[in-house]
Amino acid sequence: MADPEEKVAISLLSRAVALDKQQRFTESLICYEEGIQILTQVIRGLKDPKKKSHFSQKANEYLDRAEHIKNHVHLEKSKGNYHEKIRIEDGAKGFSYQSVFGRFLSESVLTIDVEDPYIRTFHQLQNFVRFCEVVCRLCPNLKKISLITGKDSSNGDVQINGLSNIRSDLEERGITMDITFSETLHDREIRLDAGWIIKIGRGLDYFKPPKSKWAIGYYDLDLRPCHESTIDIYHRNNLAKNT
Amino acid sequence: MADPEEKVAISLLSRAVALDKQQRFTESLICYEEGIQILTQVIRGLKDPKKKSHFSQKANEYLDRAEHIKNHVHLEKSKGNYHEKIRIEDGAKGFSYQSVFGRFLSESVLTIDVEDPYIRTFHQLQNFVRFCEVVCRLCPNLKKISLITGKDSSNGDVQINGLSNIRSDLEERGITMDITFSETLHDREIRLDAGWIIKIGRGLDYFKPPKSKWAIGYYDLDLRPCHESTIDIYHRNNLAKNT
Repeated sequence: MADPEEKVAISLLSRAVALDKQQRFTESLICYEEGIQILTQVIRGLKDPKKKSHFSQKANEYLDRAEHIKNHVHLEKSKGNYHEKIRIEDGAKGFSYQSVFGRFLSESVLTIDVEDPYIRTFHQLQNFVRFCEVVCRLCPNLKKISLITGKDSSNGDVQINGLSNIRSDLEERGITMDITFSETLHDREIRLDAGWIIKIGRGLDYFKPPKSKWAIGYYDLDLRPCHESTIDIYHRNNLAKNT
Repeated sequence: MADPEEKVAISLLSRAVALDKQQRFTESLICYEEGIQILTQVIRGLKDPKKKSHFSQKANEYLDRAEHIKNHVHLEKSKGNYHEKIRIEDGAKGFSYQSVFGRFLSESVLTIDVEDPYIRTFHQLQNFVRFCEVVCRLCPNLKKISLITGKDSSNGDVQINGLSNIRSDLEERGITMDITFSETLHDREIRLDAGWIIKIGRGLDYFKPPKSKWAIGYYDLDLRPCHESTIDIYHRNNLAKNT
């Protein structure tokens, strides 16, 4: 019978292979690496020589694949044309901001640019608070967030009040927030100074509304169903060189 | 200069030692184990023989300590008197439900008993939704949550409405929720069928209110300041035997 660690390793590696097939390479790499680490521990504890040799062979295959992906990502980044596509099906779950782009957030991120024409209404501002929470948590050296969005002409008070509250809260954490209003903005993208560009078809507003205030998934966005949406992740190597 | 992996390993192991000193053993163990894993990788990549030998010696010391803690926890559990105390200072952060007891939640948890006299007002019900989100996420085989709480005499509609909404949402996920009202309840504790008992001095309601709806920490409870509080974690070995 498989022990719990063995199960975890197998589940991580199956996920790695699935993500790999979908060409979601940077996510797949994380699963390969974690899965291989745990599998190596499992192998160390195995007594059955047949099983041990089978698992070792598997681990080597995964290691080779992970190495190959790492090189591929590195090469594409250096050529400035890395591209990863995430398709969110209608009603799919598991796509919180942290799950989608948390792996690109780290202590090396100092500035983040957000272009999203719809940070206007109450729930869109709530999305932005959640976005700020994720970056505050994962980017301890973050110094600046630049937001370009559209002005809410019908109910501007909510927007102005919300944004200035968010700004002053970020300031207390040593993060400056620049806000620019633009009426011609079409793109929805998030740019990290490390060179990653995350383009989300719907911007940050890709979650379905919760059924009620008491719904599982009201707070935890990984449990919230999403609208159909596409996320493209690029790396602009030349951007990274300029920082 | 330390590479990023080395920094991660050192930070995890420093945290392990700090938690170890506070006798927060099960948390400390996780940090030791993750830290040692990463340190082992770092050592493998090192070229400087002096540094390599220094780090290897350190890794062995941490391994010994982790082994010692594992045995200690196992022994105390088997004697039925494992006890871990977490003191939350006034205003401290980093104590979301997931951070505090997420490590006890797993696929082996089938039933959870919650005794908390104050799941009554709007924000207390919100806390309970968040609690349910954490257990839904981490206990994929959960079948039942039993809640014993006090009745809200002043504004009972909010409570009844909130609880029945939560119950029907859990039902859709195959989780039954039993609700019992008790006026004599004093204890605040969460019991997992695996034998763990988490007693929180203030029950689930130990977070300070957010400054505004736009506050960093409105959604992410790890970023929310807490009230001073004490959490005791026990393991009832005999309970585990009965399940």
